[in-house]
Amino acid sequence: MRIAVLGTGMVGRDVAGRLSELGHDVTMGTRDVAATLARQDPDSQFTAWAAEHPQITLATLADAAAGAELVVNATSGQASLAALEAAGKENLAGKVLIDIANPLDFSRGMPPALFVSDTDSLGEQIQRAFPETKVVKTLNTLTSALMVNPRQLADGEHTVFVSGDDTAAKKLVGELLTELGHTDVIDLGDISTARGTEMLLPVWLRLWGALGTPIFNFKIVR
Amino acid sequence: MRIAVLGTGMVGRDVAGRLSELGHDVTMGTRDVAATLARQDPDSQFTAWAAEHPQITLATLADAAAGAELVVNATSGQASLAALEAAGKENLAGKVLIDIANPLDFSRGMPPALFVSDTDSLGEQIQRAFPETKVVKTLNTLTSALMVNPRQLADGEHTVFVSGDDTAAKKLVGELLTELGHTDVIDLGDISTARGTEMLLPVWLRLWGALGTPIFNFKIVR
Repeated sequence: MRIAVLGTGMVGRDVAGRLSELGHDVTMGTRDVAATLARQDPDSQFTAWAAEHPQITLATLADAAAGAELVVNATSGQASLAALEAAGKENLAGKVLIDIANPLDFSRGMPPALFVSDTDSLGEQIQRAFPETKVVKTLNTLTSALMVNPRQLADGEHTVFVSGDDTAAKKLVGELLTELGHTDVIDLGDISTARGTEMLLPVWLRLWGALGTPIFNFKIVR
Repeated sequence: MRIAVLGTGMVGRDVAGRLSELGHDVTMGTRDVAATLARQDPDSQFTAWAAEHPQITLATLADAAAGAELVVNATSGQASLAALEAAGKENLAGKVLIDIANPLDFSRGMPPALFVSDTDSLGEQIQRAFPETKVVKTLNTLTSALMVNPRQLADGEHTVFVSGDDTAAKKLVGELLTELGHTDVIDLGDISTARGTEMLLPVWLRLWGALGTPIFNFKIVR
């Protein structure tokens, strides 16, 4: 599938690299291509990673979205709505958008709070802003290394969730999750159920602290 | 141990019944003893249950707390602070208080929202109001049948969390959780980590809807 991954941070790189490895035709989208290529700090160093993934193209947010059949929002939560506006309503219309961002607000220090929760969610904000796009919230409840290689932990015996208004879109995303190696996908319901999975972040962050590693995941035992 | 369970609803009855079965000396606390005994609606019918548990005493909140070594808050979240005030600061001082309530706000319909979250929690509100009491938040992330009989699901292979400022209090609560049959107790840290576990409720409620049963629990796979 032709997939655009918006966002060139660690999460975007992990997702793009793995989808490409699985045989998908992946373009990464960034606000400013020249600036992304020029970044030198180790955490956001894109050029070295890109050199190891020559089959992955880098493009503007709009060009990446325009050429894609499916789009992944891997931008930071606070930047997501602006990034998707820059990608362009017309380039996203009719397409499935996988939203893996979290509404983390670092402005008041650590641990971050959520800038939207409980009675609304980032997933819903995106769906309302892009009504012709089929938003599916998923994968926001685990670290990116496990999003894309779940079998590295307990042979994949843990859970991911999907939330979205469009049943066919959730089916397509479910197939992609299976390709990645996920064995237990729970459909929580419409996009408003993203409130629940986004609100997992505070306990996720505390668990990271308590366990000393981000390599863990929720399993719904039933 | 002499334990007071405050709250005579389903959660309080499940907890009191099981602690008594384990050999503890259990008193239940209620705002108005006569009113509790007179209740006739099936959901809150106390008398029939009490007849099956003659070893469990019913008392006022204050009397129950005064006679106890350890207190369990099993009142509804919105009533918790008032119920604990009625139990009495002096009757709770120096004691471990297990808080299993959730800050659910049903005033805007279903699913309920949270009346406090993200930057504060009910656990912290209680700890601030009762600084001489050792509040430990736990068991608020699963249905009461599993709180007290976790082995009925996957032989107990799932997780409960503890949050609290007092290490010795958390150790005592951990021992009680082991007695109940819990096999995996994660200490998240101080009482502010209750924000995380209280914020699990929205996804818990959606999972109940998606799975069609409350007999499930989170397991932290690591």
